[in-house]
Amino acid sequence: MTTELENKSRFLRACRGLPVDQTPIWLMRQAGRYMPEYRAIRARHTMLEVIQTPELAAEVTLQPIEAFDFDAAIIFADILPPLIGMGLNLEFVKGEGPVIHNPIRSAQDVDRLATPPAAETLAPTLEAIRLVTAELTPRGIPLIGFAGAPFTLASYAIEGGSSRTYARTKTFMYAEPAAWKRLMTRLVTVQADYLIQQAKAGASALQIFDSWAGLALGQTDYERYVLPYNQMLFQMVARAGVPVINFSTGTSAYLETVAAAGGDVLGIDWRLPLDVAWQKIGFDHPIQGNLDPVTLLAPWRELKAHIDDVLDRAGGRPGHIFNLGHGILKETPVENVRRLVDYVRERTAGGGA
Amino acid sequence: MTTELENKSRFLRACRGLPVDQTPIWLMRQAGRYMPEYRAIRARHTMLEVIQTPELAAEVTLQPIEAFDFDAAIIFADILPPLIGMGLNLEFVKGEGPVIHNPIRSAQDVDRLATPPAAETLAPTLEAIRLVTAELTPRGIPLIGFAGAPFTLASYAIEGGSSRTYARTKTFMYAEPAAWKRLMTRLVTVQADYLIQQAKAGASALQIFDSWAGLALGQTDYERYVLPYNQMLFQMVARAGVPVINFSTGTSAYLETVAAAGGDVLGIDWRLPLDVAWQKIGFDHPIQGNLDPVTLLAPWRELKAHIDDVLDRAGGRPGHIFNLGHGILKETPVENVRRLVDYVRERTAGGGA
Repeated sequence: MTTELENKSRFLRACRGLPVDQTPIWLMRQAGRYMPEYRAIRARHTMLEVIQTPELAAEVTLQPIEAFDFDAAIIFADILPPLIGMGLNLEFVKGEGPVIHNPIRSAQDVDRLATPPAAETLAPTLEAIRLVTAELTPRGIPLIGFAGAPFTLASYAIEGGSSRTYARTKTFMYAEPAAWKRLMTRLVTVQADYLIQQAKAGASALQIFDSWAGLALGQTDYERYVLPYNQMLFQMVARAGVPVINFSTGTSAYLETVAAAGGDVLGIDWRLPLDVAWQKIGFDHPIQGNLDPVTLLAPWRELKAHIDDVLDRAGGRPGHIFNLGHGILKETPVENVRRLVDYVRERTAGGGA
Repeated sequence: MTTELENKSRFLRACRGLPVDQTPIWLMRQAGRYMPEYRAIRARHTMLEVIQTPELAAEVTLQPIEAFDFDAAIIFADILPPLIGMGLNLEFVKGEGPVIHNPIRSAQDVDRLATPPAAETLAPTLEAIRLVTAELTPRGIPLIGFAGAPFTLASYAIEGGSSRTYARTKTFMYAEPAAWKRLMTRLVTVQADYLIQQAKAGASALQIFDSWAGLALGQTDYERYVLPYNQMLFQMVARAGVPVINFSTGTSAYLETVAAAGGDVLGIDWRLPLDVAWQKIGFDHPIQGNLDPVTLLAPWRELKAHIDDVLDRAGGRPGHIFNLGHGILKETPVENVRRLVDYVRERTAGGGA
């Protein structure tokens, strides 16, 4: 079954740089608040309830597949729940985003972090993956599992939520290098296990989100404080035997370094034109991206111009997966998502661009 | 007097790429909440009161000069007050930052924006410049005037405050290209006049802050929607006859393009190593930066390593102005600022590095 999926799925083929009949497309955060079906579920359940109830997570994961026929599903989850099992008290506060009530503020705080197996603490997500793949594999649609990269998780754990400056995280990193190493190593341990378990549960590909490292750090600090841990994580996750997507934002100035950390596909944000980014990492390295999510709020004329720009720059080369440069915005009109998918299908039919 | 200042000031010499006896240093937002003297004033006056009372603005501007002996002062002001004269209702809300109560949401909103002369609407800042330069010029210390670049101002005017995604700004830009052009052109008109008036009032250099364009936009959109207006602004401001610093953040992937927009000195953030950035724009182009402001919260060992990194990469070349990669943080210990200034002075004495 798996082999058939691998051979037939244009998303999985593109992950390996193989020719495809048309450019595969999926969108980060494709199961989300822009969809009325999703909002209907969330009106009755909190974010954590949906994530932690396999049937609900599975239902939400399938919603965008039914609505838009994307080339891949991504399991409905969030990057932060692994922190709960490690001992952090996570809450999604309405209108405020994630809050951690007992953030890490000292070396001792790091030492109280547990590294429990994902099979124990993240069982609902693994079960949701089993439910979704039972449904999707016979239909030839792959499911992507995912997790956060250690810096991005560490920033939430230390700041206690979102941040504009990452001042606490970076100060901790500078002031407590030994504790930073222990923190990052524990996060790698937990995330590697979680990702491998997702593949075992049925995920055909994995994406690692390093959403904030590039916005927070300059290249030199990235190389010293982040890169070794990302390398470790990618190396461990390679054992899962499925393609891995290495996604980050704000790293366009040192993309080569980011790509060198590992992963089969580099996921990029919208800040560099696709061909410029692709040339930096080499055209034999599959790439995912990179429509600016805000263009989905624009009139069709302007949205189409931006889609055309991405496809023109991809130039019909194998190894391109169409996606946004970051998650879809909740204000996005459903109709624009439909036009996007239809247009990418229509323009790339036959495999060319 | 002016000529003597130009010849003697190591800051003004570095702005022209001339040799200096030691690397000049000043810090963005050097008059700010990390200083107890500043907090004492702000305990009795709002932000706008300080800006709009020439004696207070002058006093606050001088505080970091007296405390740290920086090589340049920068007039205490904010990039947003020019929007008040244009008809926007600006308030600095405690703990929330700037709020504009009547943001721009339509093409008609753009057409109601006035373009009054700075001499009328920004007179207190111009007067504060006169007061400060009367004090500093005899002491051989130059004063920097400043203003926001049109995209950064437009983003506040449209969002109504700060933003993480700039979704409203970009949607407006995409959906209303003609109104966007009118908005940006009006902002250029107002800002060019304001900057030229600051030079006439006594400022020996000017800095234009494009803090958000690079975080908001990819290179292609930057070239289409921002670059022409920045070029126009730099061209107009060149008439002021003083060095102009072109500062932005998040633009490291296309720094050459940003530098080509204009200005005598490129101000960079901390995301690229200084020598990598400098090489991109050419070593004959003066550069300002680029210590990560968060390193000022770190232990001296780590702070010193980051200062050394900047100075090593500057390599003692003429045309380097030491600064942060963005504004100093309010949590910064005063003692660290003192050590920073002393160390840069000590290490670069004699002009070498």
